[in-house]
Amino acid sequence: MNWEPYLHKAQYYETDGMGIIHHSNYIRWFEEARVDFLAQIGMPFEEVEARGIVSPVLHVSCDYKTMARFGETVRIFVTVTGYTGAKLFLTYRVEDAETGALRCAGESSHCFLSGGRPVSLRRAVPDYDAILRGLPLVGKED
Amino acid sequence: MNWEPYLHKAQYYETDGMGIIHHSNYIRWFEEARVDFLAQIGMPFEEVEARGIVSPVLHVSCDYKTMARFGETVRIFVTVTGYTGAKLFLTYRVEDAETGALRCAGESSHCFLSGGRPVSLRRAVPDYDAILRGLPLVGKED
Amino acid sequence: MNWEPYLHKAQYYETDGMGIIHHSNYIRWFEEARVDFLAQIGMPFEEVEARGIVSPVLHVSCDYKTMARFGETVRIFVTVTGYTGAKLFLTYRVEDAETGALRCAGESSHCFLSGGRPVSLRRAVPDYDAILRGLPLVGKED
Amino acid sequence: MNWEPYLHKAQYYETDGMGIIHHSNYIRWFEEARVDFLAQIGMPFEEVEARGIVSPVLHVSCDYKTMARFGETVRIFVTVTGYTGAKLFLTYRVEDAETGALRCAGESSHCFLSGGRPVSLRRAVPDYDAILRGLPLVGKED
Repeated sequence: MNWEPYLHKAQYYETDGMGIIHHSNYIRWFEEARVDFLAQIGMPFEEVEARGIVSPVLHVSCDYKTMARFGETVRIFVTVTGYTGAKLFLTYRVEDAETGALRCAGESSHCFLSGGRPVSLRRAVPDYDAILRGLPLVGKED
Repeated sequence: MNWEPYLHKAQYYETDGMGIIHHSNYIRWFEEARVDFLAQIGMPFEEVEARGIVSPVLHVSCDYKTMARFGETVRIFVTVTGYTGAKLFLTYRVEDAETGALRCAGESSHCFLSGGRPVSLRRAVPDYDAILRGLPLVGKED
Repeated sequence: MNWEPYLHKAQYYETDGMGIIHHSNYIRWFEEARVDFLAQIGMPFEEVEARGIVSPVLHVSCDYKTMARFGETVRIFVTVTGYTGAKLFLTYRVEDAETGALRCAGESSHCFLSGGRPVSLRRAVPDYDAILRGLPLVGKED
Repeated sequence: MNWEPYLHKAQYYETDGMGIIHHSNYIRWFEEARVDFLAQIGMPFEEVEARGIVSPVLHVSCDYKTMARFGETVRIFVTVTGYTGAKLFLTYRVEDAETGALRCAGESSHCFLSGGRPVSLRRAVPDYDAILRGLPLVGKED
């Protein structure tokens, strides 16, 4: 199975006074790419939400390598590095769509809530659990 | 009655590639100032929300005069220019807190919803209606 | 000549506590659509900027009609309603890409700066002036 | 020496569809607190920038513990955990200003650029170097 990387065009309102994309926006781009990835594997957000599940962020990190600028398009690769039934671990690789230059690499982890309480997907939504278990888990890049 | 103007310090993440505050942020600052103003007159957002009322934006506009920069503090004056029971009209004047230089001036208008449906505050929440009717309505500045 | 409308997919980080897209984001979407439109007519931002021209916003307004939600795609039509050599006037129509329902309609106006000073494009960059003069100016919708 | 923690009032435009503050905003709050902290120790941003130094983010991370909501004020403690002359390491602790409940804890690291090139503060700006060396470095909290 191959997932399509996510494309984002850097917007002017995302730039900062240094003339580059403000670092906080990459955290938002991770979210864009994650939503797109989850839809690709069969867990579209609208459907997840309609089943009463939300998935807050427990942790996020980002290593900035080179600077994206206004007008450039980045390509974002999302990889699942772990899934425990109760938690999901993802990594992100953001590269310039034209040159392939690495802009940044990051991680996020998530739990699942139903009615505001932590749940195991295994019990709460077995079909999502099966989807996530069926993914080729890739070891976390260091 | 005198309301305290609202103070906001311009943040680095609010700057853009021109080295000035991105124009979209002033719309957000209007909201900050509006929330503060409504709390001052006795309509704190938490309480309004707890009574099941939300107040979406129907219209917003802004005239940009001079450019705020990172690190500067602006002082925002909020004025009610109209209230009909079902709609509220506000204006905003944003000036440099140090020099008084006008940064921008704007307007917003709002309706009130309860359970997703438009309501008249007069019927739905008579005490808020009384507060808004009691304000010294100031004619819209041109 | 027909310009392609601009498409934007509403992101989760653009939602607010009412579960809808926060009103300030439409001002940012206007910018996205404007940049795309200017590139289509032969004034790509990178090139404009490389020629030392910036185009700050003088005025912006937006009338909110219906609420966009996370995951929906909007289609934005940009129209030039006026051009004086020194100022440019645009309108925006944002509609749901699927149903065509009007989300909001807005306007912006802009001047041109070179080296921080207002310039007439007619003198400063005659070829851009010619492009803008050649557009079928559409009367402002009321 | 005691530095004042930084206070930020959570804004409505910072909320998301879950009714909580969107996780990306904490990264922006770290920046607000960092700018404030640097000014307190004698490195106000305007002055740093006027001396031709910028300080991009190399890495950022955040562990989310509990959820801040609109209208709440958070108190942010900034601590320097390392400084090498060329790099600066900071941690952040964000807590509810009223209850002291931990909202999140994070880290950032930074380099220094002059004219777009990495510089050692020791050589480029010895007085800033002296300020940072004079700080009571606190071990990174785990």
